[in-house]
Amino acid sequence: MRALSVELGARSYPIYIGPDLLSAHELFKPHICGRQVLVVTNDTVAPLYLDRLLATLQPWQTHTKILPDGESFKTIETWSSILDALIGVPCARDTTLIALGGGVIGDISGFAAACYQRGIGYIQAPTTLLAQVDSSVGGKTAVNHVLGKNIIGAFYQPSAVIADTRTLETLDDRELRAGIAEVIKYGLICDYEFFAWLEENMPALVGRDSDALTYAIERSCQNKSEVVGADERELGRRAILNLGHTFGHAIETSVGYGEWLHGEAVAAGMVMAAAMSQRLGELTDADCERIERLIGRAGLPTRPPVGLDDDTFLQRMAVDKKVRGGRIRLVLLRAIGDAYINDDYPDTVLEQTLRQARSGP
Amino acid sequence: MRALSVELGARSYPIYIGPDLLSAHELFKPHICGRQVLVVTNDTVAPLYLDRLLATLQPWQTHTKILPDGESFKTIETWSSILDALIGVPCARDTTLIALGGGVIGDISGFAAACYQRGIGYIQAPTTLLAQVDSSVGGKTAVNHVLGKNIIGAFYQPSAVIADTRTLETLDDRELRAGIAEVIKYGLICDYEFFAWLEENMPALVGRDSDALTYAIERSCQNKSEVVGADERELGRRAILNLGHTFGHAIETSVGYGEWLHGEAVAAGMVMAAAMSQRLGELTDADCERIERLIGRAGLPTRPPVGLDDDTFLQRMAVDKKVRGGRIRLVLLRAIGDAYINDDYPDTVLEQTLRQARSGP
Repeated sequence: MRALSVELGARSYPIYIGPDLLSAHELFKPHICGRQVLVVTNDTVAPLYLDRLLATLQPWQTHTKILPDGESFKTIETWSSILDALIGVPCARDTTLIALGGGVIGDISGFAAACYQRGIGYIQAPTTLLAQVDSSVGGKTAVNHVLGKNIIGAFYQPSAVIADTRTLETLDDRELRAGIAEVIKYGLICDYEFFAWLEENMPALVGRDSDALTYAIERSCQNKSEVVGADERELGRRAILNLGHTFGHAIETSVGYGEWLHGEAVAAGMVMAAAMSQRLGELTDADCERIERLIGRAGLPTRPPVGLDDDTFLQRMAVDKKVRGGRIRLVLLRAIGDAYINDDYPDTVLEQTLRQARSGP
Repeated sequence: MRALSVELGARSYPIYIGPDLLSAHELFKPHICGRQVLVVTNDTVAPLYLDRLLATLQPWQTHTKILPDGESFKTIETWSSILDALIGVPCARDTTLIALGGGVIGDISGFAAACYQRGIGYIQAPTTLLAQVDSSVGGKTAVNHVLGKNIIGAFYQPSAVIADTRTLETLDDRELRAGIAEVIKYGLICDYEFFAWLEENMPALVGRDSDALTYAIERSCQNKSEVVGADERELGRRAILNLGHTFGHAIETSVGYGEWLHGEAVAAGMVMAAAMSQRLGELTDADCERIERLIGRAGLPTRPPVGLDDDTFLQRMAVDKKVRGGRIRLVLLRAIGDAYINDDYPDTVLEQTLRQARSGP
């Protein structure tokens, strides 16, 4: 097992990564303060891992809430149904919520924990690669709105992240690749050495080599912890974690939630960000190609879906959270491993980037 | 104009109290950071004060959201409609929300500000006595659930509280008295001298004497600021601000939101808390009578509504946020001006208190 830590003063918490951690009673124990626990999961994960977790939680009074699986259910209505479950028991203020599942379960459960009685404790138990390397760490919780991805939510840190790598064995290939998109992101934004490692080890990762996966998860969490620890509420540098996300969110909201997986949209978005950086004369042609090639080798899309017109795309980008003072703030690249925030680019460059992405090379 | 401050480190903010502050451009200006403002109000307040505020906000791009008036609309659905308005514009992350109205508007708008894009800035512009002395200060935001008052919400501090005392001129008598309930609360929990002042000046307050009202608002805000400054997230002493509220919330949820005003329910709840404190041998008979007499002189109810049975009452109290480890934590009184938290009382004393309150003296 590997242990890391997110350093946020009084809100610091550990990240545990390793096989069979869902059975590790001693890891959960220090983070459950009251007598009651609500496990929130979905109808895909529940048959696979819920019993295992409930057995681990035996000494506590456990309740479960099983949601339908999928990004299209990441709504105010579903979030509200978790609150109904908490109130229905009724669960006291010292109840601990455990989010058992992927990014949707983690985001929506974290947001429910943030709002129930103005905040109860919660533990992230991520079961997808994407959740283990990204969404379970850092306290960003949210639901979607028809017009905006993750537009309603809270910064609310978990008390622990317990990532059982064995759960990746049941993850389908498409979900695994979607997770790899966020892994690649860390290399791109701040860790050139990791990017180079990924170029070497992509076949091992997509081939589910357990050592390679564990290393990639740990290194990703390490990168994320450092960025979050320095800027919890995204007042500055944390925004680099959104590389590819403003383009990606526009894709997700345009095609309908769940059509494209989040990681797939981010993958295409990162290629667009790289292309725009190249167009601005900041990223070399060679680096831009390396990025597109690695994303392609991960089996991820490198272009937005066909049929999206530029106006719709720009409009969807403008609803994103990265807009300030009327400008869409983009995360761009100076080089592989060196991301920065840019809200002072010529509009024509963004338009050309969109046009090029639609029309292909 | 009077100016106070809530001291919370980086989240500190000013409270301004005085006549015609809705027209005081220079008070709003430093707390509006972006170009966009959304004013949230209701259909009672809008015809009276919205134009005045919008004129003050002239340099900014203003939008308005007018909600139906009343506690029964303090729901997830109404909150969600504010978010729809923000997204519909669309409002950027540097938008400032202004809550123009009473406690319901302040609580629900504050919760919308807390959740839109994971938190935007907001200003409280309270227009009722209750909101000016209590709910606009301290960052408690929430909506109700059928089963629990304020059970869904967030701790989220405003960037300023701007209380225009002129708005009290249009407040009806019942609402004014409901506000006085929270004013009396401060005397009871931590300010004996203020309680004695209230005994002297109750006729002036219910008679809407402007100096008396301004003094009562300022002294209430001062008391509240000190308590909140010492314990923002109610980990300890802040809970004394809930004197009468656990009983009161049970009344509100039992009779249906809006039937009793919040302040009325709290008034009856404070008499019940005093009676229980007396029964536990902590509060003298004389003090208990003084409390009931002052609340009666304010024209407020001193008994819960008839027809509420003890079991329902206890059940509703048990859903309240003050439950920990299975015990209902109550705020009780050692003396006038000296509240404390008690979760170690004989159940029979609580039951006797409920029975006595129902049956009368």
